[in-house]
Amino acid sequence: MNGLESAGNRVCGIGLAGCGTVGMGVVRTLARNGALIRQRLAADVTLEVKKILVRDLAKHRSGEVAPELFTRDWQAVVEDPAVSVVVELIGGTDLAFTIVARALELGKPVVTGNKALLAERGEELFGLSRKYNTPIHFEAAVAGGIPIIKSVREAFVGNRITAMTGIINGTSNYILQRMAEAGLDFQSALAEAQQLGYAEADPTLDVNGWDAAHKAILLATLAYGFPIATESVHVLGIQQVKPIDIEFAKQLGYVVKLLAVIREHSEGAVEIRLQPSFVSRSHILASVNGVFNAVAVHGDAVGDAVFYGRGAGQDPTASAVVADLVEAASACGAEGKHRGFLPWSEGGSLVPIEDTETAYYVRFDVTDRLGVIAEIAQVLAAAKIGISGTHSPVNPEDPEAAFVDMVFLLHRCPYGTLQQALKKIEALDCVNSPPVVFRIEVL
Amino acid sequence: MNGLESAGNRVCGIGLAGCGTVGMGVVRTLARNGALIRQRLAADVTLEVKKILVRDLAKHRSGEVAPELFTRDWQAVVEDPAVSVVVELIGGTDLAFTIVARALELGKPVVTGNKALLAERGEELFGLSRKYNTPIHFEAAVAGGIPIIKSVREAFVGNRITAMTGIINGTSNYILQRMAEAGLDFQSALAEAQQLGYAEADPTLDVNGWDAAHKAILLATLAYGFPIATESVHVLGIQQVKPIDIEFAKQLGYVVKLLAVIREHSEGAVEIRLQPSFVSRSHILASVNGVFNAVAVHGDAVGDAVFYGRGAGQDPTASAVVADLVEAASACGAEGKHRGFLPWSEGGSLVPIEDTETAYYVRFDVTDRLGVIAEIAQVLAAAKIGISGTHSPVNPEDPEAAFVDMVFLLHRCPYGTLQQALKKIEALDCVNSPPVVFRIEVL
Repeated sequence: MNGLESAGNRVCGIGLAGCGTVGMGVVRTLARNGALIRQRLAADVTLEVKKILVRDLAKHRSGEVAPELFTRDWQAVVEDPAVSVVVELIGGTDLAFTIVARALELGKPVVTGNKALLAERGEELFGLSRKYNTPIHFEAAVAGGIPIIKSVREAFVGNRITAMTGIINGTSNYILQRMAEAGLDFQSALAEAQQLGYAEADPTLDVNGWDAAHKAILLATLAYGFPIATESVHVLGIQQVKPIDIEFAKQLGYVVKLLAVIREHSEGAVEIRLQPSFVSRSHILASVNGVFNAVAVHGDAVGDAVFYGRGAGQDPTASAVVADLVEAASACGAEGKHRGFLPWSEGGSLVPIEDTETAYYVRFDVTDRLGVIAEIAQVLAAAKIGISGTHSPVNPEDPEAAFVDMVFLLHRCPYGTLQQALKKIEALDCVNSPPVVFRIEVL
Repeated sequence: MNGLESAGNRVCGIGLAGCGTVGMGVVRTLARNGALIRQRLAADVTLEVKKILVRDLAKHRSGEVAPELFTRDWQAVVEDPAVSVVVELIGGTDLAFTIVARALELGKPVVTGNKALLAERGEELFGLSRKYNTPIHFEAAVAGGIPIIKSVREAFVGNRITAMTGIINGTSNYILQRMAEAGLDFQSALAEAQQLGYAEADPTLDVNGWDAAHKAILLATLAYGFPIATESVHVLGIQQVKPIDIEFAKQLGYVVKLLAVIREHSEGAVEIRLQPSFVSRSHILASVNGVFNAVAVHGDAVGDAVFYGRGAGQDPTASAVVADLVEAASACGAEGKHRGFLPWSEGGSLVPIEDTETAYYVRFDVTDRLGVIAEIAQVLAAAKIGISGTHSPVNPEDPEAAFVDMVFLLHRCPYGTLQQALKKIEALDCVNSPPVVFRIEVL
């Protein structure tokens, strides 16, 4: 077997594609805890980095890593006979795809933290994983420090997963928290997050929801076993969230969280959506603050479980990569089918977003004149949407003051039904702009 | 290989020792989700219960399970050639030990939820596990629905575990919560828990801390790799917790939780203790209510992570047993050393309880006369124990009223130093009974 010495102390050679923040975290974790890892493993395997792919050799001359390990040639990493496991940490979906595909073809297990790659091109890659009987490990791709993939796949293997709800983007969670705490608007909170290093220079995928959506797609594929086309998933980011709605949420006993919601309706019919939602302040997910992530899982046997931890960062992500490396190294040379994840179902489908049901918070910007509430309520009644409450910030000192924001809390109804009613309400002349909608999640 | 058909659809025969609540949960989970489990596994293994050990055959005639599976003869279960994995769910440390030992000797992997067995006799059993190269799986033994064993062993394998803090006894957590919410005393809250089925008829091990201590011992052994003698662990239960201290905790911003605290001081020197402690109301563990369990883990790479879920009950525990069964079945027939847990370190030691440090809450029952506070404070000062605050519930309407309860909040100091000072204070004639001490945990 490539890169494995057959003696008592087997060496598992690692090819590292990418040596940025996480890659250096992997190198350092192996250096710091390598002896401990060897002690813990029943099998005597030593993990050893043999080759590292980088873009710029000049950047890696600090001496922390032997310079001869670095190369700019991806094939020199993947095809090196001393390399038996390939770690892909370069990001993107092109060269990363080439590297992972080639490693699988060579029968070298892959460890990756690339959620975009697996969400976008997972179907092809898992096909190669099956074809070449070589596993892809991807714990680092979803909520770095939280072992949610292992838990769903292995610990909850005996469960029908009925729902998963996650806060799986730390950047947007931080921004929403600062908007709530300090009354900041989105742009100011984003700027603060960037200053503190919690948001990247280009925060697009974090704030538009797609980073979290990629993770949600992977979680749903794990739980339900079928590949999910990214374009079929309903994704809303936090860019449009206004301080006023966060303030009203607070007054009503909620917090606003960017939530991934995955739910099985009937066997194989799965709801996936990603949007800023209202979560009751008393729910455990409401207290997930800062850049932390959390995933709540409901299984038919295990009931409710919640996993909480750091979703990103050098060391937490490295911790997940190292766990996958150990798993890959331990299985090296094993007979039979590999034990990595493979999609197992072809019968799955997504529930159309119009058919998904929650309660809602809807805010209307209205002209305060006689009959406004009646007109809106009439449209809702005609659509058979129940009203559970209304909220409008009047000033009790001045009962003559005009209100401009009128909030309705609505009973559960299909999203499609709500959208149709809102179109009619938007056409009323007392309504000045498109209504603002948040789902109220019952978790 | 015993009980394994070599065809595409391999059958893994299960011998179930014990068919009470959890045993029936396992039978039902396999019946309900067996097809789903087969789909999820890369290898085509069917888990099939082949024999069930029970004490009373007459009790198992409902027809839910084929009557010919039941037997009163443990050897008929363990030694049946159709049985390749043995599940031990009978509890206790005698017959359970015999069954597990015999299974290992026969090379049949064991799945057990018996924390007392592993905490008391783990050293012998892991010795047999090593000798016969046959794994013992025990996810169900600690916090049933929470995959904490898998997470510490596998997901965090790359981490030095610096601390683990757990609420790992649901019964006592429920009792403490009811004492806080409803002002009940211990006996009334226990009676309520028994009525609701949250406490057993004999609740001794739940309320005296030993059920949780057994789990803490297993967690520490997992993290640090050495067997721990039960008698060397400092264990306090909740029987002595008084409503007045729970009330004062609330006034001071804390909640009282029965906490397992495991911490590494220096390499191999480990602190383990189990006691009702003060936890800041803002910490995530403070919001773990009812019969739920939670374990907070700190690893040097992963940082803070928290796992939350149901710690007991038929289905959550069965979920853990089934996960272990799948792991055992998947590894059946694999070459090389088994991948179950084995202690790996012989150099570990426990930190004496006298050397463990926290801050403290100490309540004195005193005679209110001139100089009381000065006398107590003087003893503390002489012992170099700092005072961070005092608390005594005076009635501001009646400044002449005598107080009887005087609370001191003390800075961090070794527990031994505190004990010596408290002995001196107890000897003061203004102090009427032994002081009440709670640790204030900084998590």
